[in-house]
Amino acid sequence: MSRYALALEYDGRSFCGWQVQPQAPTVQAAVEAAVSRMAGHPVRVHAAGRTDAGVHASRQVAHFDTDVDRPLTAWVRGVNSFLPPGVAVLWAKAVPDAFHSRFVAHARHYRYLLLNHPVRPALWAGRVGWIHQPLDLAAFRDAAQRLLGTHDFSSFRAAECQAKTPVKTLSRIELAQQGDLLMVDFSADAFLHHMVRNLMGALLHIAKGNEAPAWIETLLAARERAVAPPTFMPDGLYLAGVSYPAEFGLDTEPCQRHGLI
Amino acid sequence: MSRYALALEYDGRSFCGWQVQPQAPTVQAAVEAAVSRMAGHPVRVHAAGRTDAGVHASRQVAHFDTDVDRPLTAWVRGVNSFLPPGVAVLWAKAVPDAFHSRFVAHARHYRYLLLNHPVRPALWAGRVGWIHQPLDLAAFRDAAQRLLGTHDFSSFRAAECQAKTPVKTLSRIELAQQGDLLMVDFSADAFLHHMVRNLMGALLHIAKGNEAPAWIETLLAARERAVAPPTFMPDGLYLAGVSYPAEFGLDTEPCQRHGLI
Repeated sequence: MSRYALALEYDGRSFCGWQVQPQAPTVQAAVEAAVSRMAGHPVRVHAAGRTDAGVHASRQVAHFDTDVDRPLTAWVRGVNSFLPPGVAVLWAKAVPDAFHSRFVAHARHYRYLLLNHPVRPALWAGRVGWIHQPLDLAAFRDAAQRLLGTHDFSSFRAAECQAKTPVKTLSRIELAQQGDLLMVDFSADAFLHHMVRNLMGALLHIAKGNEAPAWIETLLAARERAVAPPTFMPDGLYLAGVSYPAEFGLDTEPCQRHGLI
Repeated sequence: MSRYALALEYDGRSFCGWQVQPQAPTVQAAVEAAVSRMAGHPVRVHAAGRTDAGVHASRQVAHFDTDVDRPLTAWVRGVNSFLPPGVAVLWAKAVPDAFHSRFVAHARHYRYLLLNHPVRPALWAGRVGWIHQPLDLAAFRDAAQRLLGTHDFSSFRAAECQAKTPVKTLSRIELAQQGDLLMVDFSADAFLHHMVRNLMGALLHIAKGNEAPAWIETLLAARERAVAPPTFMPDGLYLAGVSYPAEFGLDTEPCQRHGLI
């Protein structure tokens, strides 16, 4: 039995999220079908992050097991020829059995792309979030810094979340600007269900001037989803990378192909 | 009667090109329906460039006439509320009767986005062209420079082209690189039908090492479409701006919202 890691890129609009569901096209179902066809036997594919419907990935990491011996190009170009246009394997690598895309990952990286412009996106519809009001970016950054570190993130956790603990360590929130597009990078050991979208909802509530930056600490302290603003739209969210121990030699750090995604 | 200019952004995948066709969704049909609904009477909308199926626009310019007096926001936000997600009005401006989006334009600007990577795009499917082979960018630039100036571009003209003359003045071809994405900017007084895609086909043929840069001059001199390489895919082509005499005070120069498009 050999284990392979895959890096995947996908457009979340083409799928109803990562996870296999009866009667709905999902990324997992598409990748499992393509890998199984290449392997000649049914293959289960596990991913580092089970992204929601409408959420994209520039560098999702997954793994699978097979007894079939094929060159790595079979798991990249071969599998890509069986995949629909909205998803592609970027690379494949043989990994030891100790590797598990989800369990041995020690950090996840998300990027949120947000269009801040009076007019809704058309070229970028479904690929960026959109806020038409002017934003106070200094207030956004101030509030974001207060989220760094280890906290109970219950106020930013979806009811359906299956994580064992709401305590996570947020190691990075950085806001950059390119024209009227904002890019917000989040890194943590792990994220709760809807956590990035819920954090974006609260940070944008502050950046719109509804609350002062310190209010984010009140939300954190409340440990209660109901006190925080609504979940922000999935459109601009990208799983941008997953970090693993160096021993696996995987090139899975967040990598934007061309500045944006 | 008042005349208004509109700047439009659209995703070419959502439409069968600009021009109204029976039985097919086109950008012109969508914009005319939305503007007519806002005006309360049938409105014809004329564009600077009649883009093909699959070709996008980051800044198309159009104009229309109406007797109805509405604030400019009606022609932007109001019209956008009637448009499908893949197209949006960026701004509207009252212009004198002497303005015509197509006839008074003195330059058009296109950008071609090209992914140069072994793996096909998924996140960017339909939005970038794709070449998996390594490219000689110095050869691309060398050949491109030889196209500048006034030439008979018959070798790069589609059979269906309705332009009065194949002689056009190419004032700019510039290649920039951002990661594995190449951006090629073209400016000319006007372009023949398929001209940018045909030029890309020839320049990429050279950049792949099939011919020397000077071969582009042989193609130009032949004035014969059959001698030049095939039309390159529409996926990465964006109408990026249209230039008008300064007296009209329009902000229609090419403007990439965030470096890329």
